[in-house]
Amino acid sequence: MIVLRREVGDVLRGHRQAQGRTLREISASAAVSLGYLSEVERGEKEASSELLASICGALNLPMSKMLSDVSDRAAESEAVSALVTLPVARRSDLVRASAA
Amino acid sequence: MIVLRREVGDVLRGHRQAQGRTLREISASAAVSLGYLSEVERGEKEASSELLASICGALNLPMSKMLSDVSDRAAESEAVSALVTLPVARRSDLVRASAA
Repeated sequence: MIVLRREVGDVLRGHRQAQGRTLREISASAAVSLGYLSEVERGEKEASSELLASICGALNLPMSKMLSDVSDRAAESEAVSALVTLPVARRSDLVRASAA
Repeated sequence: MIVLRREVGDVLRGHRQAQGRTLREISASAAVSLGYLSEVERGEKEASSELLASICGALNLPMSKMLSDVSDRAAESEAVSALVTLPVARRSDLVRASAA
């Protein structure tokens, strides 16, 4: 099952690291405690809508972009679990088809 | 400011109504109380990741699709607020440009 807060946390951390910024910088800019931000990034805390907006603002990351990144990750997980739950015969058909 | 829980609520309600299903049906299928589901749809309650997954499951709505719908709505809001916060001169330029 897709756990949204984990995907959101990974996306937020990915953008922060891609910008070469620290947890401390973002927590100060977003007015969120460093510990809380860290828990959100690790998918351990559900961030409220207001907090998410504030973190996205601190990252100069449009909410729409954050959400489409999370949607892409969810789509990948869904594709993998659809494949895993196929009967073995159909799975091998797919593997053969993709190799052809 | 985009309030994520309101956009999520609108998207969930939109899919439920498009399927011609009642709050009662979805709440039973998702094992969520009717009152809680109603509050989530109205954007009054933050749904946990687990609850969202359960509601999406009851709607046969992939999480990735729900998120991309919410992302599209957020992108529209962002475009509107970008326009509103432009200086008046630039805004009228845009209106002129789009009329040309």
